[in-house]
Amino acid sequence: MAKTKVAIVGASGYAGSELTRLLLSHPAVELVRVTSKSQAGRMVTEVFPHLSGLTELVFQPFDAKKVKEAAEVIFTALPHGRSMVNVPQLYDKEHKVIDLSGDFRLTPELYQAWYKREHIEPDLIEEAVYGLTELARREVSSAGLVANPGCYATCVTLAVAPFISSMVIERDIIADAISGVSGAGRPPTDRNQYCQVEGNVMAYKAGGTHQHIPEIEQSCYGLCQMPVSVSFTPHLGPFPRGILSTSYAKLKEKLSGAELHEMLAAFYQDAPFVTVLPLEDHPQVKLVHGTNFAHLAVALDERSNLLVMMSAIDNLGKGAAGQAIQNMNLMLGLEETAGLLQGAVFP
Amino acid sequence: MAKTKVAIVGASGYAGSELTRLLLSHPAVELVRVTSKSQAGRMVTEVFPHLSGLTELVFQPFDAKKVKEAAEVIFTALPHGRSMVNVPQLYDKEHKVIDLSGDFRLTPELYQAWYKREHIEPDLIEEAVYGLTELARREVSSAGLVANPGCYATCVTLAVAPFISSMVIERDIIADAISGVSGAGRPPTDRNQYCQVEGNVMAYKAGGTHQHIPEIEQSCYGLCQMPVSVSFTPHLGPFPRGILSTSYAKLKEKLSGAELHEMLAAFYQDAPFVTVLPLEDHPQVKLVHGTNFAHLAVALDERSNLLVMMSAIDNLGKGAAGQAIQNMNLMLGLEETAGLLQGAVFP
Amino acid sequence: MAKTKVAIVGASGYAGSELTRLLLSHPAVELVRVTSKSQAGRMVTEVFPHLSGLTELVFQPFDAKKVKEAAEVIFTALPHGRSMVNVPQLYDKEHKVIDLSGDFRLTPELYQAWYKREHIEPDLIEEAVYGLTELARREVSSAGLVANPGCYATCVTLAVAPFISSMVIERDIIADAISGVSGAGRPPTDRNQYCQVEGNVMAYKAGGTHQHIPEIEQSCYGLCQMPVSVSFTPHLGPFPRGILSTSYAKLKEKLSGAELHEMLAAFYQDAPFVTVLPLEDHPQVKLVHGTNFAHLAVALDERSNLLVMMSAIDNLGKGAAGQAIQNMNLMLGLEETAGLLQGAVFP
Amino acid sequence: MAKTKVAIVGASGYAGSELTRLLLSHPAVELVRVTSKSQAGRMVTEVFPHLSGLTELVFQPFDAKKVKEAAEVIFTALPHGRSMVNVPQLYDKEHKVIDLSGDFRLTPELYQAWYKREHIEPDLIEEAVYGLTELARREVSSAGLVANPGCYATCVTLAVAPFISSMVIERDIIADAISGVSGAGRPPTDRNQYCQVEGNVMAYKAGGTHQHIPEIEQSCYGLCQMPVSVSFTPHLGPFPRGILSTSYAKLKEKLSGAELHEMLAAFYQDAPFVTVLPLEDHPQVKLVHGTNFAHLAVALDERSNLLVMMSAIDNLGKGAAGQAIQNMNLMLGLEETAGLLQGAVFP
Repeated sequence: MAKTKVAIVGASGYAGSELTRLLLSHPAVELVRVTSKSQAGRMVTEVFPHLSGLTELVFQPFDAKKVKEAAEVIFTALPHGRSMVNVPQLYDKEHKVIDLSGDFRLTPELYQAWYKREHIEPDLIEEAVYGLTELARREVSSAGLVANPGCYATCVTLAVAPFISSMVIERDIIADAISGVSGAGRPPTDRNQYCQVEGNVMAYKAGGTHQHIPEIEQSCYGLCQMPVSVSFTPHLGPFPRGILSTSYAKLKEKLSGAELHEMLAAFYQDAPFVTVLPLEDHPQVKLVHGTNFAHLAVALDERSNLLVMMSAIDNLGKGAAGQAIQNMNLMLGLEETAGLLQGAVFP
Repeated sequence: MAKTKVAIVGASGYAGSELTRLLLSHPAVELVRVTSKSQAGRMVTEVFPHLSGLTELVFQPFDAKKVKEAAEVIFTALPHGRSMVNVPQLYDKEHKVIDLSGDFRLTPELYQAWYKREHIEPDLIEEAVYGLTELARREVSSAGLVANPGCYATCVTLAVAPFISSMVIERDIIADAISGVSGAGRPPTDRNQYCQVEGNVMAYKAGGTHQHIPEIEQSCYGLCQMPVSVSFTPHLGPFPRGILSTSYAKLKEKLSGAELHEMLAAFYQDAPFVTVLPLEDHPQVKLVHGTNFAHLAVALDERSNLLVMMSAIDNLGKGAAGQAIQNMNLMLGLEETAGLLQGAVFP
Repeated sequence: MAKTKVAIVGASGYAGSELTRLLLSHPAVELVRVTSKSQAGRMVTEVFPHLSGLTELVFQPFDAKKVKEAAEVIFTALPHGRSMVNVPQLYDKEHKVIDLSGDFRLTPELYQAWYKREHIEPDLIEEAVYGLTELARREVSSAGLVANPGCYATCVTLAVAPFISSMVIERDIIADAISGVSGAGRPPTDRNQYCQVEGNVMAYKAGGTHQHIPEIEQSCYGLCQMPVSVSFTPHLGPFPRGILSTSYAKLKEKLSGAELHEMLAAFYQDAPFVTVLPLEDHPQVKLVHGTNFAHLAVALDERSNLLVMMSAIDNLGKGAAGQAIQNMNLMLGLEETAGLLQGAVFP
Repeated sequence: MAKTKVAIVGASGYAGSELTRLLLSHPAVELVRVTSKSQAGRMVTEVFPHLSGLTELVFQPFDAKKVKEAAEVIFTALPHGRSMVNVPQLYDKEHKVIDLSGDFRLTPELYQAWYKREHIEPDLIEEAVYGLTELARREVSSAGLVANPGCYATCVTLAVAPFISSMVIERDIIADAISGVSGAGRPPTDRNQYCQVEGNVMAYKAGGTHQHIPEIEQSCYGLCQMPVSVSFTPHLGPFPRGILSTSYAKLKEKLSGAELHEMLAAFYQDAPFVTVLPLEDHPQVKLVHGTNFAHLAVALDERSNLLVMMSAIDNLGKGAAGQAIQNMNLMLGLEETAGLLQGAVFP
């Protein structure tokens, strides 16, 4: 069977690097073109020596026409604000686009409120499917343009979805999450340098200002058709990859831990990338390192009648490149798991 | 001036090691005896080569009489359940004791409920002062027996105390905290080995079962004379020392971030070891590494009218040995800061 | 095409875990049986939750007959001393065995000298092919029993082989290497616990006593038919996987850096897993993390006329499980690279 | 007793930060002025929040006159090339200067050869004492200008000095060393960012080009009055502080491990900051973290008649700020150990 040709626009960041790694070993697609403004002209393996021996590709400058000539499916891994400029040049009836930026995830109003800039392609947002795969398998399958979810949003939403959906919890969620350093991107800064991060942990954007909040609230609204308020605090931890989230909501009725666990397991029984851990177990980011898996668990704080919802993903895997490929698989009518069934590299 | 003679009972764990390090360079006391069941007969510097060149002490087997002959102030850094056996043999009118275990922190009823064992010295609990120094400076100064607080309890309580005390928040607190690995103690286990911890982060005891919870609730009760419910989830992170806590409570009234920050700063204006960070800043565990300092900050989530209270301490410093020495300083009428004014080793 | 059935005996250590991960996604073989003394009866995914969603296998107790009934190719990942007991029960005309222990790598005399125990199957050593693939591709292809090389031996030998083979260096090599913690195995000890390893680095077995030394010397002898002396110092570093080696030897004649680099590149021009870095570049263990690749480089110290030979591998990849599968591929007449062409998970 | 007033010029790098930390708690000196070009006008605790609560100092722009008015002893922690401009403006009969740069460590010829720039103050080099304290205690005591040694040079030289001095080894040394990331300085770069360093280790400047090499050779010449050749390869490891060196030289005669150990112990018997480990033990960087101590050990490779000389220091402690203060103590006639007798923060 002929392999589908795919391209990555903006391939020299961490998400682009992970897309490259995964697409190079995908059995049903061929990666034919990668573009990068900053690295154009350099060998991919020169910029990403961890892929040495696996590809002869060279980074190209962005040229929408050439990308569209070369590929049928295009991943855009561009900075927020840049995607809404480039995606309209790429997306059409013959080309499917999976966008990893925040540009097509929110309504124009929410986008302006959280990203502090006006959206220049509000109509295209309407066409985009928000690709949190487990919650939108059908819509993604028939989509031409997918807005791939944010990493924190994926992690938190997967954990709370079964309980918002069944409306057993109050619609006030407190979500605490910690991400590895790759979440902050590839350019060196004061904040991501080794001597600053090592041995350290800190919150940032405390007070509910992170731009993934409206994604979670929007998904929750979709699940229960009522507004849900999320108070979210991200943290930065001393590890390269992974997000762990611990979320809290009051239970509306008395339920046992076993019942809650059962509810979680049932919700994801057909999801090949979601592992529901036994009651009393806790997700660990290291166990999903480099994969598209999500590990979920619940605990019940009976003294406070509070449900604790926990989840772990790889921010570059299920939180970015992995989920993008999972979405591509559905869009192309492939097995949902094609090219993604690797275990974590442990230890 | 003659130095006060001090001893450590149970000196070969991490808290004992840190007490040893700090007491060896304390200007007003002399460390004269250290005991250890497992290491008796070995040089301290053989077991703790990071103290090479600083002491000739040898670990002794425990002998209450000899400890009391040698020292006026005795630190007990024993496992929970062991302290209540040994402390009564050490504490008397001539000897002050600072106990780092959980054995004298709670009422007998709470102790039994959370530690799952009966307390054999309930009367002694009455005499013990719970030594969260900033909240009990006067009581500690005249105490003969101090129950040194738990590390998580210290971290969370310092952050929430000003707001519980002023009753501007609801009495339902959600506290999320992450600790470095030394919090789990020194013996090697599956869980604290390098390949398991590195690159990883996870919750544990989710569902409100950690034994430091009643300490926090008890301190909160002391501050507002009303019951406070704390739902607490500890996490384990890939760093050796430090605790970061992020706690949440609903505000009872509308207050600005600036007002809340001012409230925090005012509460600790006379506390030499508490640094209140500017609004919009966030505590970092690395900045208190190896010290007795606590870094505190607040943020206001206006969308949810939720107060976010953050704090960072060193679990072996302010969370154990540092606070124990701070308490000793008060008990001996020394400067509160004696022997403790070192900056963090950074980077 | 029917997949070849394979089994792993002693599958619950780190090497066994990595074999399991790689074999589960190998396109031409099927992993049908895994044995473990300590974990018999438990699900593989319970012991290795990083493989959740990928296998339903259960650890079996060791039973040679059942292993041979189930599989044609058997990997033995047993402790040294145990393999020489079990391998003879598994290896026969119908069954190929790849042994990852040290038991079949050395002559009986060397084995006794370095492992301090008598070898009970000296005849079987004769039959075993020492499987440093790049130096023994032909022998491995027709082998029934392969002794898979030690991790340090693989790393150092790959770096020095081209120069020993061409005899441009003196036959006195100093090799310095540093390994990640997984090299020390899975059971928790004082030495591999997080708080001991983190932020630390140390030599061990300094003075030339590591049991991989005779492997390197033996391979060198094979390359130049003359005795070569290796003085080797292993170090332990704060990372989970990877070995970096830096080796030194006097040049016998004046050669330029470019000539030496060319010699290295030529030697490995047909080796799909060896990447020779440009002159002035340096191997990094992180760039081969989780892979079967080796990154090699050379530098010339003109002031001392000394050649510096550098190499990086993953101790569990090319240093153990990866190379074992590379050998299996050759033994089965498959593509040498089958199932092994993944890039490193970076960052 | 009145405290001696001291100043730091160039105090906002890592060495300056560590000098600040140590001088703030030094019992016999008072830190009165700190200068920084980039941070002038900011509070020290704003730039170095790990020193919060310990100082009210504000970074000043450099002004030689004001520095000299304020202080008697001046530490210069400036980039190479900058010190030779500023030191002559500071150093005079009334002011002692301890320079932490490479500008006054080498002869003008060697400086030009290794630093690739002409020295503009060759006469001042003559006056400077190379302050590897243990080898120059007397000269330092009467010095007005001390060139504080490089971190690698300190680490390697301490390990080899006893054996070069006694001439039991050949004068060809191979030195392998690994440093923590702070050795690369404070500004963020591609190379020192977390995601690049974490889980990684690599050599750099392989081939004998590091500028600390001539320092080691010069010290060795001073010890035996004959040229010594050092082939040195630095490595970068995933830890914030510390240097471990492993050096090799052929023994000229047969000596036992015990004899070599005794030689080492005897050489440093009066050195308060040198700990000679028992035979068969190995130095660990974590055990000297944050201190001025050096841990040394030897091993004998009898098969190769090679001596293995190992050492561990903190690159910012004994390798920079600690040794600078040790030198200051001697220059001021204080106890050599004043202000420096802290144990390592462990774990």
